Amino acid sequence: MIRALATVAALCALVPICAFATEPAPQLAPGEIVSAASQSEWTRIAPEDLLVMELAADAAGKPRRVVIQLMPAPFSQGWIGNIRKLARAHWWDGLSVNRVQDNYVAQWGDADGEDKAKARALPRGLAVMTEDQYTVGGDAPGWQRFKDLTWPRGTISSYVAFDRGWPVAAEGTPDRVQRWPVHCYGMVGVGRNLAPDTGTGAELYAVIGHAPRHLDRNIALVGRVIEGIENLSSLPRGTGALGFYETPGERAQILSVRLGNELTAPSAYEYLSTDSASFLRYAQARANRRDAFFVRPAGGADICNIPVPVRRVPAAN
Amino acid sequence: MIRALATVAALCALVPICAFATEPAPQLAPGEIVSAASQSEWTRIAPEDLLVMELAADAAGKPRRVVIQLMPAPFSQGWIGNIRKLARAHWWDGLSVNRVQDNYVAQWGDADGEDKAKARALPRGLAVMTEDQYTVGGDAPGWQRFKDLTWPRGTISSYVAFDRGWPVAAEGTPDRVQRWPVHCYGMVGVGRNLAPDTGTGAELYAVIGHAPRHLDRNIALVGRVIEGIENLSSLPRGTGALGFYETPGERAQILSVRLGNELTAPSAYEYLSTDSASFLRYAQARANRRDAFFVRPAGGADICNIPVPVRRVPAAN
Repeated sequence: MIRALATVAALCALVPICAFATEPAPQLAPGEIVSAASQSEWTRIAPEDLLVMELAADAAGKPRRVVIQLMPAPFSQGWIGNIRKLARAHWWDGLSVNRVQDNYVAQWGDADGEDKAKARALPRGLAVMTEDQYTVGGDAPGWQRFKDLTWPRGTISSYVAFDRGWPVAAEGTPDRVQRWPVHCYGMVGVGRNLAPDTGTGAELYAVIGHAPRHLDRNIALVGRVIEGIENLSSLPRGTGALGFYETPGERAQILSVRLGNELTAPSAYEYLSTDSASFLRYAQARANRRDAFFVRPAGGADICNIPVPVRRVPAAN
Repeated sequence: MIRALATVAALCALVPICAFATEPAPQLAPGEIVSAASQSEWTRIAPEDLLVMELAADAAGKPRRVVIQLMPAPFSQGWIGNIRKLARAHWWDGLSVNRVQDNYVAQWGDADGEDKAKARALPRGLAVMTEDQYTVGGDAPGWQRFKDLTWPRGTISSYVAFDRGWPVAAEGTPDRVQRWPVHCYGMVGVGRNLAPDTGTGAELYAVIGHAPRHLDRNIALVGRVIEGIENLSSLPRGTGALGFYETPGERAQILSVRLGNELTAPSAYEYLSTDSASFLRYAQARANRRDAFFVRPAGGADICNIPVPVRRVPAAN
């Protein structure tokens, strides 16, 4: 497919009439645009913003690592502070993935957390957050760049956009805008009981299905899986209510959860800056696929169908 | 949660001031609305519209059945005719699931299909379809019922709605509307090579991630998985390009694929009629969750976040 496209493009370069064709010129595929981005358009993720979970090896002995990027300020910082504290205390070590509900979430933490006699004690000094911290004030910088590409818009929210590498939605009046991260595939959030409880951050889940946007502003999002989501999304589904495993033997064991800056040999990652020219071209291509396979471009893309590209790079040392 | 809600509702029934509260009264959860639907609101799926795929048992010996409902006329009937012909010829028996790409699709058919020397011969007389058959003319009946609930709208399409049990999108002018089924989680489509090839129906895939709406009108959709999607969505991801398995041993074997009316002891299924009052209430509840867990209703729901309820019922014999 790539070869066929290159041929058409090369031909067009030699034939001026191509510019006047009623059909738009063939476009690069989204992945090709990302591959062609310059190094300066990539942003390194700080090691302290990585949360690395090692699950027990699978039945074939293959290690299962899940790497999560934590969100930057001002989003969800109270919960994220708790998560850093829990990771430094090695709190998750020996706990498990307890729930895998198809087309919804994989959730991990203390399987005995609801049982006061058996629950693992939490570290002291965890912050208690309130529901008003699900959103933050102010417009996403540069949101206008995406307003003709992304949907939904005009209904659930005034707009959806990308804010320093993260998908966000916002609504409000010009003098009072609220914005919040959105529940796309791979996003990581904080399990909680009934409101006004907002959860501590000890119980976490990752989205493994179609974006459950009804959870936006009802649960704190704290990050996203940037590597190894398949180690959660391909786990057997739980057969109990809400996809909880019915027996302890079904749970996937957590060997350890560490912050990236606590690891002796961390991997390093970069994301394609959402302020970059290449990211805008990538979003345009996701909204209107014109590479060889496609017959009819869609005219727009759901915010969750424009995943921010992340790549592993050699460590900085 | 259900108990807490019932208590509040009972209290409100006794206290007239509840009707004047600024907060809307608590609503039933979507699942509770479906459970309360009357039998007359459910529509039986004809056995000849079921396609039942048996995969080899998993490592623990658990059988893996995937039940697909085929779409009704006028959608995609040429491909669906081919699929019936292939099923009657037992064409898929002994073939395999060859591709599982995370957050995208699981795909099955002839792993050697691209190799003329090894490919399994197709039955004679399969129809050849063209790209104009990806859509059909005319409005979805009753689409106005959903227009204030569902998004996206106004951009990629004039509207999204439900057409006799199926999620559809449409666009056009009053005198010429085209509509088409949409790529929601669990939908089943026809693999193809580069256009203008549209595929025969021998190579099929199911969506196992966020709705890839850019495939709408670029690929024929023929049905949806109504039971056993987890037997596809929890398969190990392929590590080759596009999620293809790199070695034959990784593939999940297909024992058989049969139409429901060819099975001696078929299961029977019903879907909640999308014309029913209960379905509208269910869609409203999906768009604005007001059951006990929720702090803030979303104000709308993506068409793919309103999955049409399907249930297994005793066979009609």
